[in-house]
Amino acid sequence: MFSEQEKEALYKIIYKRRDIRTFLPDPIPHESIMNLLNAAHHGPSVGFMQPWNFIMVTQEEKKAQLAWAADKERRALAIHYERNRQDQFLSLKVEGLKQAPVTICVTCDPTRGGAHVLGRNSIPETDILSTACAIQNMWLAACAEGLAMGWVSFYKKNDVREILDIPPHIEPVALLSVGYTDHYPSNPILESANWEKRRELNALIFHETWGNQ
Amino acid sequence: MFSEQEKEALYKIIYKRRDIRTFLPDPIPHESIMNLLNAAHHGPSVGFMQPWNFIMVTQEEKKAQLAWAADKERRALAIHYERNRQDQFLSLKVEGLKQAPVTICVTCDPTRGGAHVLGRNSIPETDILSTACAIQNMWLAACAEGLAMGWVSFYKKNDVREILDIPPHIEPVALLSVGYTDHYPSNPILESANWEKRRELNALIFHETWGNQ
Repeated sequence: MFSEQEKEALYKIIYKRRDIRTFLPDPIPHESIMNLLNAAHHGPSVGFMQPWNFIMVTQEEKKAQLAWAADKERRALAIHYERNRQDQFLSLKVEGLKQAPVTICVTCDPTRGGAHVLGRNSIPETDILSTACAIQNMWLAACAEGLAMGWVSFYKKNDVREILDIPPHIEPVALLSVGYTDHYPSNPILESANWEKRRELNALIFHETWGNQ
Repeated sequence: MFSEQEKEALYKIIYKRRDIRTFLPDPIPHESIMNLLNAAHHGPSVGFMQPWNFIMVTQEEKKAQLAWAADKERRALAIHYERNRQDQFLSLKVEGLKQAPVTICVTCDPTRGGAHVLGRNSIPETDILSTACAIQNMWLAACAEGLAMGWVSFYKKNDVREILDIPPHIEPVALLSVGYTDHYPSNPILESANWEKRRELNALIFHETWGNQ
């Protein structure tokens, strides 16, 4: 069904995709944005519930409020790290939220599709897992479009709900900053910053039962 | 960074990927399996924690036990549906778990990376969201390799833990059946079965705040 070239293209995109924190202010063509959202919307979802919404944040004021919420949480978290790790931690930026021309808040509506969504009825968190799959599609699409994307996961959900008028039962799953960048690194930022190493894949594979390599 | 052809290849794969429930018994080349696992391992993860493991289940006995656990849960869930919907529901198969030459149990270790994983410290479920992103990479890779994949999400986690010797603190996030198929549908199975329709993307997009279209 797919050619060798198409397969190679997928792997190239999967391997090159990075989490980006610095952006240029250049605007993004509408077509690229719609390609990203369409890719997300074609993600898999439990019981085909399609629980996602996409809030497109472009106003300076809203972006500044989101950056404030993320920075507040970042400073609170820093208190839990020891001195060296704290310095390392504080240098990791959340300013991308202000720099990027657009931040997409991807949400998950656990009530969509009614009370007994197929599969979700058995494992409730499959709704947010579906939303994460949609986000990964979007991330790969952004990479293929020559765009940078960063997933900010420091915030109190209720701060984000308040800033974006999100109802209490809706989960703000991610804040995704999207834009162009002049530096798309070849390795994960946290790897280059000596925060974590990439693990050996073989050590993560088991056969038939847990722990059996 | 990417050519027009590479971009188109990604979208083609994203749009054609389906959740498959019927498999041929044909074995999968080792190289394809490793491509899938490598794609998963190059997914993003909060604080670069790489919380995933992959348990490769190929023994008939183990596969039959997993199918038993899924079928038991399916019959229990069916009780919650009204008559018509129940018949529709019971016809949805979980036999793929027995048919497919391999089922991959993807797990998430919430303790990996220590007590204060960057980002996870703020939103704990980002560990399973990371695992879902890895699964989506794997799903796209399977599609590109000409393989079918099905995500089974009906089971009691403790049944799966017991069958695969998974420790209590580890989350069995997904059972993924992988194999070749002689029928790769062009639409989602649940759409063809009139279970759910694909939503209009535009209705899911808001601007600046929730509900603002």
